[in-house]
Amino acid sequence: MAALELVSSSRCFDGEVRKYRHASATTRCTMTFNVFLPECALAGREKVPVLMYLSGLTCNEDNMITKGGALPYLSRQRIALVAPDTSPRGAGVEGEDGDWELGTGAGFYVDATQEPWRASYQMYSYVQCELQKLVADSFPVDPLRISVFGHSMGGHGALVLALRNPGQYRSVSALAPICRPSKTSWGQKQFRAYLGPDPEAWAAYDATELAKRYSGPPLPVLVDQGSSDEFYIGKQLQPLELVAAAESNPRHVVLDMRMQPGYDHSYWFVQTVMEDHILFHAKHLRP
Amino acid sequence: MAALELVSSSRCFDGEVRKYRHASATTRCTMTFNVFLPECALAGREKVPVLMYLSGLTCNEDNMITKGGALPYLSRQRIALVAPDTSPRGAGVEGEDGDWELGTGAGFYVDATQEPWRASYQMYSYVQCELQKLVADSFPVDPLRISVFGHSMGGHGALVLALRNPGQYRSVSALAPICRPSKTSWGQKQFRAYLGPDPEAWAAYDATELAKRYSGPPLPVLVDQGSSDEFYIGKQLQPLELVAAAESNPRHVVLDMRMQPGYDHSYWFVQTVMEDHILFHAKHLRP
Repeated sequence: MAALELVSSSRCFDGEVRKYRHASATTRCTMTFNVFLPECALAGREKVPVLMYLSGLTCNEDNMITKGGALPYLSRQRIALVAPDTSPRGAGVEGEDGDWELGTGAGFYVDATQEPWRASYQMYSYVQCELQKLVADSFPVDPLRISVFGHSMGGHGALVLALRNPGQYRSVSALAPICRPSKTSWGQKQFRAYLGPDPEAWAAYDATELAKRYSGPPLPVLVDQGSSDEFYIGKQLQPLELVAAAESNPRHVVLDMRMQPGYDHSYWFVQTVMEDHILFHAKHLRP
Repeated sequence: MAALELVSSSRCFDGEVRKYRHASATTRCTMTFNVFLPECALAGREKVPVLMYLSGLTCNEDNMITKGGALPYLSRQRIALVAPDTSPRGAGVEGEDGDWELGTGAGFYVDATQEPWRASYQMYSYVQCELQKLVADSFPVDPLRISVFGHSMGGHGALVLALRNPGQYRSVSALAPICRPSKTSWGQKQFRAYLGPDPEAWAAYDATELAKRYSGPPLPVLVDQGSSDEFYIGKQLQPLELVAAAESNPRHVVLDMRMQPGYDHSYWFVQTVMEDHILFHAKHLRP
């Protein structure tokens, strides 16, 4: 296990926000992530549950923790937050920096099988395996109580993680998620590059496909979608396809989909619904 | 009155965050600011009170509104926020971009009297006069109910505005403010450049001096200071000088100074105490 290097640390809401970097064996580059640890965990009184947040296209590990407005609620609920980056960075893959929808900032939480991406673009395994092990080994957390959420591409990532790992995540939620990536241009473009031309390979990373087939323990899912979201209007997100899939599988996927009138795709929307999402996860992480 | 140009607008906490730009007669360049308008103001049900926030060195109009975590509380208390930039930008003043402590991002909320700054670096008058008139004329607000707060250099600016304009502001608060700029290197450096070498001219922008002499109606003041703040430790802030000044003038300056153990100078500290500051102002704006 590579050593964690503390980049910065600040007290916040009685706990601490810390940024770490480490050499990743999975992505073969240096990865950076933020954590928030509530006071009771720092004081050694309790191993706290973990909520992981996955960011969207062009974001990094900072967007949510600086702009998401989550920390007062995480502090109050005594839940740790882990916020990773959205892709390898500086991995030296040809073409990774030329297009905001591909490569840097656009890892899409898949394990690439295609050249030139496959050596580094392994964000599914990075988040699901390496990062979680690192967190469990390094911080006063209870890794058996973990939930995941995310925004846009990160909402897709969160749904895929939870639906592919039955019983691991206590709850999953998503803000304006990409719900049908194998059928929308956000998704098809990246899946073709990372996973190759065969749509069969794409289904393993398509939340709607996964929700139809999911047969694990009942999974609580909360999704919020702004009605004025330019990407929703542009049909990149397709939340109603996820609703239909959940309705076809109601004993396993317990979806609460909420339309939020007038909200766009930005972090102004994210912070508006943040308290609800933290409380939703708290209900499952601290039943 | 120059026309306001709407740059962007997003729904947030039932209200709206909007960015505007306008040609400023005071600073002789294009100025940009953010506002938050709560839902009841947008719906025309009520003219709401105004809280103005002044940012610190290197900041612009975005820092607080994106990272300060204020909006849920402003929405709940039905208070509008106005967040201006910290200096003229692109005014074409020689040397304005070479030093983060002077010029762009470092207007210090003074009216410069010295060359080359005096044509544009008029941030005191910009904030106190032009911007407030623009806000009163353009938005569904009650300009007679106004308070001001700020961080670091902006905390200095907020204290100076309130102490120089007795009876105008219902309350003032500051987070890690520069309290004694005429005696600390943050302050002396800028005052010498903007106001000239005579320390007499500096007293008009020194919150501690102003607090000693203030004879207006009792002014409620809340100040929070982190004990691990590198600039507090480095003696750039000098909050105890402000405490002593307020104690010498207790019938006029009603100061609550709170030390916050372990907090640094960052926006992690700002967002931690934000709810308290909004509630403090709400008590005076909506008695």
